[in-house]
Amino acid sequence: MLYNVQVKVMPLKNLLDPQGKAVQNGLFSLGLNNVKDVRIGKHITLQIEAANEQAAIAIADEAGKKLLANPVMEYFEIELVN
Amino acid sequence: MLYNVQVKVMPLKNLLDPQGKAVQNGLFSLGLNNVKDVRIGKHITLQIEAANEQAAIAIADEAGKKLLANPVMEYFEIELVN
Repeated sequence: MLYNVQVKVMPLKNLLDPQGKAVQNGLFSLGLNNVKDVRIGKHITLQIEAANEQAAIAIADEAGKKLLANPVMEYFEIELVN
Repeated sequence: MLYNVQVKVMPLKNLLDPQGKAVQNGLFSLGLNNVKDVRIGKHITLQIEAANEQAAIAIADEAGKKLLANPVMEYFEIELVN
């Protein structure tokens, strides 16, 4: 069966996020000064062919560890959609 | 009150996603050949100071339209977390 798995890759919470800071400054310049913090990561959707949900999540976890996230700077979270 | 709003910015569904294709090929090389499709977008978390949930979502929507997403190539979805 085909599973739709979403992987969220974000910068570690205790690291600075210069890209997010730049976007926050941009929003401020546009008048959106109620935005107090911005952090930017990646949102990856995977279509995985697997026997069951557990197998699909295991494959997504392996992909996250081996390729999608850099553990020095990022963490990732997995969510099964359907 | 401070609201935590997540904005997902993804490439439009009918457009090719070369970055996703490259990652899919990378996963295939790593032996993860059960991954049939990969699409990569941005995941943005905003901390928004607003009077209520509706106001926070309106600010996030304005940010998405004005800066976060390029409507020619991307769409965005907003989700309030807490």
